[in-house]
Amino acid sequence: MSQPHHDDHLDRIRLPALRERITTAAAAAEWIKDGMTVGMSGFTKSGDAKMVPLAMAERARHTPFQITLITGASLGNDVDKLLTEAGVLARRMPFQADPVLRAAINRGEVMYVDQHLSETVEMLRTRQLAPIDIAIIEAIAITETGAIIPSTSVGNSASFAILADKVIVEINLSQSLALEGLHDIFIPKHRPQREPMPLMTPSDRVGTTTINIAPEKIVAIVITEKQDSSSTILPPDAETDAIAAHLVEFFEEEVRCGRLTNSLLPLQAGIGTIANAVMTGFINSPFAHLSMYSEVLQDSTFDLFDAGKLDFASGSSITLSSQKGAQVFRELTRYKERLVLRPQEVSNHPEIIRRLGIIAINTALEADIYGNVNSTHVLGTHIMNGIGGSGDFARNAYLAVFATKSLAKDGKISSIVPMVSHVDHNEHDVDILVTEVGLADLRGLAPRERAQAIIRNCVAQPYRGLLQEYVTEAGERGGHTPHVLEKAFSWHTRYRETGSMLPIRSVNIHPTDDLDDVSQQAA
Amino acid sequence: MSQPHHDDHLDRIRLPALRERITTAAAAAEWIKDGMTVGMSGFTKSGDAKMVPLAMAERARHTPFQITLITGASLGNDVDKLLTEAGVLARRMPFQADPVLRAAINRGEVMYVDQHLSETVEMLRTRQLAPIDIAIIEAIAITETGAIIPSTSVGNSASFAILADKVIVEINLSQSLALEGLHDIFIPKHRPQREPMPLMTPSDRVGTTTINIAPEKIVAIVITEKQDSSSTILPPDAETDAIAAHLVEFFEEEVRCGRLTNSLLPLQAGIGTIANAVMTGFINSPFAHLSMYSEVLQDSTFDLFDAGKLDFASGSSITLSSQKGAQVFRELTRYKERLVLRPQEVSNHPEIIRRLGIIAINTALEADIYGNVNSTHVLGTHIMNGIGGSGDFARNAYLAVFATKSLAKDGKISSIVPMVSHVDHNEHDVDILVTEVGLADLRGLAPRERAQAIIRNCVAQPYRGLLQEYVTEAGERGGHTPHVLEKAFSWHTRYRETGSMLPIRSVNIHPTDDLDDVSQQAA
Repeated sequence: MSQPHHDDHLDRIRLPALRERITTAAAAAEWIKDGMTVGMSGFTKSGDAKMVPLAMAERARHTPFQITLITGASLGNDVDKLLTEAGVLARRMPFQADPVLRAAINRGEVMYVDQHLSETVEMLRTRQLAPIDIAIIEAIAITETGAIIPSTSVGNSASFAILADKVIVEINLSQSLALEGLHDIFIPKHRPQREPMPLMTPSDRVGTTTINIAPEKIVAIVITEKQDSSSTILPPDAETDAIAAHLVEFFEEEVRCGRLTNSLLPLQAGIGTIANAVMTGFINSPFAHLSMYSEVLQDSTFDLFDAGKLDFASGSSITLSSQKGAQVFRELTRYKERLVLRPQEVSNHPEIIRRLGIIAINTALEADIYGNVNSTHVLGTHIMNGIGGSGDFARNAYLAVFATKSLAKDGKISSIVPMVSHVDHNEHDVDILVTEVGLADLRGLAPRERAQAIIRNCVAQPYRGLLQEYVTEAGERGGHTPHVLEKAFSWHTRYRETGSMLPIRSVNIHPTDDLDDVSQQAA
Repeated sequence: MSQPHHDDHLDRIRLPALRERITTAAAAAEWIKDGMTVGMSGFTKSGDAKMVPLAMAERARHTPFQITLITGASLGNDVDKLLTEAGVLARRMPFQADPVLRAAINRGEVMYVDQHLSETVEMLRTRQLAPIDIAIIEAIAITETGAIIPSTSVGNSASFAILADKVIVEINLSQSLALEGLHDIFIPKHRPQREPMPLMTPSDRVGTTTINIAPEKIVAIVITEKQDSSSTILPPDAETDAIAAHLVEFFEEEVRCGRLTNSLLPLQAGIGTIANAVMTGFINSPFAHLSMYSEVLQDSTFDLFDAGKLDFASGSSITLSSQKGAQVFRELTRYKERLVLRPQEVSNHPEIIRRLGIIAINTALEADIYGNVNSTHVLGTHIMNGIGGSGDFARNAYLAVFATKSLAKDGKISSIVPMVSHVDHNEHDVDILVTEVGLADLRGLAPRERAQAIIRNCVAQPYRGLLQEYVTEAGERGGHTPHVLEKAFSWHTRYRETGSMLPIRSVNIHPTDDLDDVSQQAA
């Protein structure tokens, strides 16, 4: 993030009548009552409301109350942590990535509804979820007509503001005014009047640059200079470099076969270290004039711009490391005409994903021998983050890639198991599985063939041999998708009991990153 | 089917130059060589090529050869059975429903690639699957320009004929010429030139009525009077009536709440007895001016037309019982202007499914306490049919309903289990689960709430109590989605070992249909 701009905050409220709505965060928070459903800006820690939620947490310490909190995706600034600790969250959707909230969810204290990110506002719009009582939206400014100019994310903010009766705006002076004009707000019509979305390339603009609402809905305005939280992705390492190299080699072969051109097709990449590293790997690739049609734009997006590899990037948020953020927001005008931020129902829309032919690259927590992927649940029960947008993309994409390191916890966990303990993406949706060991191209293969391709290409020893033993025993029982059901989770239960998936202590396991990192998922 | 029409078959080949391509099935089958990929018409037993595949099976008895066979969906006339018995099938996609082929797949003898039905031609078009060497397409006629007029299904026929270098046409004299004009063939452009599909209601026509190819690609024409196989769905029974009644009651409440109008939204229904019975249930409902945007149009579609409930039905095939077929095809002109048959990539297109806001009703083989659905695999290993189009619909629909009888095999199987042994549709995609016991509305619920809703509403005793015990034990271990992994499949392993999921013999189990019927899935 750049340093706070010390311009007059009144200049950022261009409809003078609204200036009288400026108030404190504590006063604004009084609008939120027990039992309400609150729609709040924020997607992958960017553009989140920062002051009012903290005032809510403060108030709940002396006057307990609970709400349903709906956002775009994850929040920064410890908002989910503080609201959890204050007991404010009864229900949370559609995504989170906070350790304190996650623990409360896993204890069954917060009801977490883990949703496909394209679906939340569709369900709100059709009143399949309880209505939004109040929206809290971070903005860089309010226009002369009272329209809201979002900051570093769009997420679900536009529909929250449109659907709510009351809107609280947080004007964030630390967010660059150069963001104005970057957004493209398109809201689908109600059915049966809904029309095709006229978006045919990632750079097409189909909406407005502002969130247009009746200004009288804005009941409070809070001024802040609090910055977005920075991304905490790790730099590429030997294993993520190997994953990226396998993928580049795969795409080179696709180009050689004439299935793709040298500019590939629009790329989507999930959030986190592995996906960012994979995208960084395109810098030293032969591909050119790449484009992105993704959810979150991370450091790698701007590295690819600077390397001259990327022509255009469409996302729903910009989430950068501290260093990269300082540079990008200082030089935003240099990138701006090659960027657009859209509502997440547009960035993740099945219509656009299928039409553009997205190459979707997401991260697996674990995968199994048939190519089913668990993106979310440790040992099948404890959630890490959520499915995010990975399901919107994987089901409808031209090509669905899932990447993971083959080992976790110093080799005590194999990311490739006989059967995943939770299925977020099933065999029908997983085209390519890649680890640092290698890449399995699963297109057009039957389950028994998928198993051989995955074991041969993606699994480190000694797990490779153990999986082959499992497959052999399962094959003797028969079936299209052979399994030994009573042993399908034996690796998970062994890990739970002994701290390792290995039946006996084994040497030659390569150390690897912590499970928490491996589990980063789209959004 | 109506009786064969004894018109002159030459009249059905309106481009005279093509009449010299008329040959025997045996001669036409000589075009198919060992190792080829063959694209064949046929979707839910309708409009399938009938003569050439049988000649292929005949030939293979003395001269063995193997092919990859790709169709729309399932075939009739024992084609899959005879090709399997003759050893012709090395690889088969994207769907099948034949007991003999299924057994060969489960023995690992035929490599079966079970695909989302919208995806097969996308993968062929982009050469992600081996190219179609030859297409075999049933037609009612060939036009003056050499274009093919399909019969009772479109399926993947149009793209097969367009993509193949050589096309064999089976002119079927038993198929009514009144089918001409019923089809709407729309083929998406190659990316990045692809445009929005201009389809905004189920009745919109966006393509041509014929499959337009260069006539010189037609290398052989075979004449037949062999009829489509009839559907073998069972009539509604007390349990399917109860399922239908629960759903009608649910939709009445949705209308009362203002979430739906009295004409609901376009309906999709999977193939088979349960889905057909559910659709039949709308006859005695308060709803009116219904529409369908589905894959297969079954008896219930025409019952709804006759009852004045249904305004329009879009599908990819018409598959009827023997009695209904005789009536419908005799009176086809009476229904024709309210019908359209489309390629399956259009009937199942994510873009259209999301835009129209489809209400998708499909059948579960088993479901679990969190709402994950197994549509395909008995005991997690042995496939019945395939996922068909259910994944295209459930992921992208306005509302995804899954229906099943709560018990199978005289109560020795509970269709609701602690954890499904195979996941085709995960918790993110299942909004409503309904059995004869009742309906669970899972929208906006967290996993622990979903479990209570499903156990309370959908499960028959004594399994209800057993599932509650499981949930209690799992809850003590904690997690967002509590499980006792080492017991998650204990019901399946007990059934495998003892022939019943019940731990002890129990009385008061209601008899139900055979598992084979319960497993009918979309397409």
